[in-house]
Amino acid sequence: MPPNRAKTDFCQIVIDFRPLLFVIGILLTTLAFVMCLPAIVDWSMDNPDWQVFTASALITLFLGICLMLGNRSDNFRFTIHQAFLLTTLSWLTIGMFGSLPFMFSNLDLSFTDAVFEAMSGITTTGSTVITGLDFAPPGILLWRALLQWLGGIGIVVMAIAVLPMLRVGGMQLFHMESSDTSEKVMPRTAQIASGIGLIYLFLTLLCAAALWLSGMSGFQAIAHAMTTIATGGFSTSDNSVGHFNSATIDIIITCFMILGSMPFVLYLQAVRSNVMLRSSWRLFFTDSQVRWFLSMIFLAVATLTCWQWLRDDVTFLEALRYASFNSVSLMTGTGYSTTDFGLWGGFAVLLLFFLMVVGGCAGSTTCGIKIFRFQIIYAIAKAQIGRLMQPHGVFTPYYNRKPIPPDVSESVMGFFFLFVLVFTVLALGLSFIGLDFLTSMSGAATAIANVGPGLGEIIGPARTFAPLPDSAKWLLSCGMLIGRLELFTVLILFVPSFWRG
Amino acid sequence: MPPNRAKTDFCQIVIDFRPLLFVIGILLTTLAFVMCLPAIVDWSMDNPDWQVFTASALITLFLGICLMLGNRSDNFRFTIHQAFLLTTLSWLTIGMFGSLPFMFSNLDLSFTDAVFEAMSGITTTGSTVITGLDFAPPGILLWRALLQWLGGIGIVVMAIAVLPMLRVGGMQLFHMESSDTSEKVMPRTAQIASGIGLIYLFLTLLCAAALWLSGMSGFQAIAHAMTTIATGGFSTSDNSVGHFNSATIDIIITCFMILGSMPFVLYLQAVRSNVMLRSSWRLFFTDSQVRWFLSMIFLAVATLTCWQWLRDDVTFLEALRYASFNSVSLMTGTGYSTTDFGLWGGFAVLLLFFLMVVGGCAGSTTCGIKIFRFQIIYAIAKAQIGRLMQPHGVFTPYYNRKPIPPDVSESVMGFFFLFVLVFTVLALGLSFIGLDFLTSMSGAATAIANVGPGLGEIIGPARTFAPLPDSAKWLLSCGMLIGRLELFTVLILFVPSFWRG
Repeated sequence: MPPNRAKTDFCQIVIDFRPLLFVIGILLTTLAFVMCLPAIVDWSMDNPDWQVFTASALITLFLGICLMLGNRSDNFRFTIHQAFLLTTLSWLTIGMFGSLPFMFSNLDLSFTDAVFEAMSGITTTGSTVITGLDFAPPGILLWRALLQWLGGIGIVVMAIAVLPMLRVGGMQLFHMESSDTSEKVMPRTAQIASGIGLIYLFLTLLCAAALWLSGMSGFQAIAHAMTTIATGGFSTSDNSVGHFNSATIDIIITCFMILGSMPFVLYLQAVRSNVMLRSSWRLFFTDSQVRWFLSMIFLAVATLTCWQWLRDDVTFLEALRYASFNSVSLMTGTGYSTTDFGLWGGFAVLLLFFLMVVGGCAGSTTCGIKIFRFQIIYAIAKAQIGRLMQPHGVFTPYYNRKPIPPDVSESVMGFFFLFVLVFTVLALGLSFIGLDFLTSMSGAATAIANVGPGLGEIIGPARTFAPLPDSAKWLLSCGMLIGRLELFTVLILFVPSFWRG
Repeated sequence: MPPNRAKTDFCQIVIDFRPLLFVIGILLTTLAFVMCLPAIVDWSMDNPDWQVFTASALITLFLGICLMLGNRSDNFRFTIHQAFLLTTLSWLTIGMFGSLPFMFSNLDLSFTDAVFEAMSGITTTGSTVITGLDFAPPGILLWRALLQWLGGIGIVVMAIAVLPMLRVGGMQLFHMESSDTSEKVMPRTAQIASGIGLIYLFLTLLCAAALWLSGMSGFQAIAHAMTTIATGGFSTSDNSVGHFNSATIDIIITCFMILGSMPFVLYLQAVRSNVMLRSSWRLFFTDSQVRWFLSMIFLAVATLTCWQWLRDDVTFLEALRYASFNSVSLMTGTGYSTTDFGLWGGFAVLLLFFLMVVGGCAGSTTCGIKIFRFQIIYAIAKAQIGRLMQPHGVFTPYYNRKPIPPDVSESVMGFFFLFVLVFTVLALGLSFIGLDFLTSMSGAATAIANVGPGLGEIIGPARTFAPLPDSAKWLLSCGMLIGRLELFTVLILFVPSFWRG
């Protein structure tokens, strides 16, 4: 072998970037049009920030059209390598261009802060570096909500159309649902995607209407509806949903956070099934993932309610209200808060810390480990224990009444390990920068699980991420991206053999 | 099915307890004889505590002989169920009876404290509730060291003879080593066990001699040698090894902690192989587990040395000395300390927290996750990434140049998940009792990984576990036992179907 063979191999990139850049061009052009919405709102309210959004839209549009024209292509059949790269690149580009309005606006955010805020938006995390939200211009508030709303629908479509094909972290399990089941719910991906888009829009409008009727202004209702369904968590107030201090609003948002954590394919099946409404909703209660999810929420809420009721000076109903809102908010990765749950005592803080990484159902807008992975690991553990006692017995793990293929169980356990590993590296990185134990640990968890607030004095629910050093913000932004794209999708780009022939 | 069928099934215990009780009888009788050693030491030093040990020995001996006589049996062929039960029962019984001297002595420990101390000893954890060790009677100090020394050799023999048969957490991988390899290192388990026992004794004496020559008293040298080889960590001073403040002692103990973390079967192979000494030691450097272990230690020591050197006002050599001793001590689960590493700053504390659960090699006296499991997970991850990029390619994970059987990879990943789960439950339990975030987290980690000291104000390296409430001590004792016996061995007893026919 000639001595410089390895180097040659490494440099020999065989991926055709042109179709990728074409798609990125389409995405940027779309983003530019979305930027016009806050521009219109700011303009109609006589706020000078409309110029900021127009300028950002023009820059984005220009680059988008350049990319489209320069890489025109009719070929949308990507190789696996291209699909991995495109997924990460699209989130990254939207994060970068989505930060333009933050940079140009009179909030005067630094480049780091702007990217952090945009990345936190598009990944539906909800960590913020902006203080004084209550007096921020409406355009900026709308832009934050729009980023999360787009990120939410983006990930749902991704989870249905792309991730099963990439087979990351056991997502191949959901490959069949659109094609192989007897129900045949609209065979083609594009149709499914548009169906789900409509449902997403409908749920958002429903949530907005409910919030408006319970006392929010129209603008606040729309902004919160968008970030609720996306389980994002950006609010229009520094005190998050606690600002409104209304039990009705708490209940509505809790319900819609749960609705946003359901597998969106089920909504489609429910709408499409030509049976009575009553039996179509039964779909949700026969799906084992949904049942596990609701049981876990029930358990968490019950525990925290009792804990708070017995410990603090609150009535049972108050305890129930705060415990249910805040634990659902953290578990689904939304990240709203109605009170400083950091003050609920050691047990509650630790429980909330672990709840953060649980997440919702696969195919929803939530992040984290996700319920189906816990189910699969539980099924494997059951089979393993059987095998320990009867070494020659045959034990097959099941998920949703079907046997789990060996490659799925391996992927899921690989995902779990990688999750812990990424968490460890991120937490170590944050502590290296100088953050304390609780801030590092909860910061790492809140970033890769796309939750929003952390725990402790610095990044707790009543605080922002603004005081962190820039290096920590970049690290957290990377964590959000890696977590949002199910770890493997991003990390595989760092494997040298990915870039070889 | 008749309505009370399930109940009948549950009560129908089919395990024959008699041979188990017979073996427990043998163990207790042995323990009684071991108790005579501290009795002799105390008697020779005119310490009234010799009566305590004699009384404890008599009680233990009486019960041991009763159990042996009442359940006489020649049948040492256990079923899987019996083997699981026996493993847990023997550790539990020795923990209980080992606590008698603590309870009766003039230290006046409560039942809870005595059991905690004995369990911490026999599981080679090294957490202590006793303050004033420097002035404690020699019998008690020797008893603590003896418990750890017995626990150490006990787990090595168990890891070679019993755990591979039980197939817990991937330990079946080490089944072949004694039988199927071409080397044929003494085919029978009993021979292997006695060979390893001799090596264990030899290493202990070597360590004691080295410590004695570098300035410890004979008693201190023997006590520390026993707890070093066992990677236990009980010391004869409240300040642990920091009491001696000697670089030579630090270096000797560091080396022997590393030697105690090696697979003991390798020593046997090295001794038995009829080749020159030089090439027999090469065995260690061709074993991939040992190489990974040494590399991880090197990495951890290098990182912590640089961190401390750049951050604090110390010379490079001082930083190297403290970093190497304390990180080896935590990673191998020994738990000695030469300084309060809680003061090294956020990054060091978090790194040490993660190092705690790493552990040493399988078949050594260490606890924790263990190196071979990281290797297996790494191999699986590599194969998975290959499969992600080439869905139809064939990728086989290897360990030590052999393909990993699918049931091993599943067991290892199951172990990893269970480890995180037990950690979570334990940490939540501790925080429920009222401990703070850092104490709960590090207490849970230090217990299941059998390390010894925790982190923070309460259970940090300069403190003891005495101030914790009794409930926390019981929880931690359970955690130590579960961690020591590779999780599955204990937890399987709580599966109802274990007790059915």
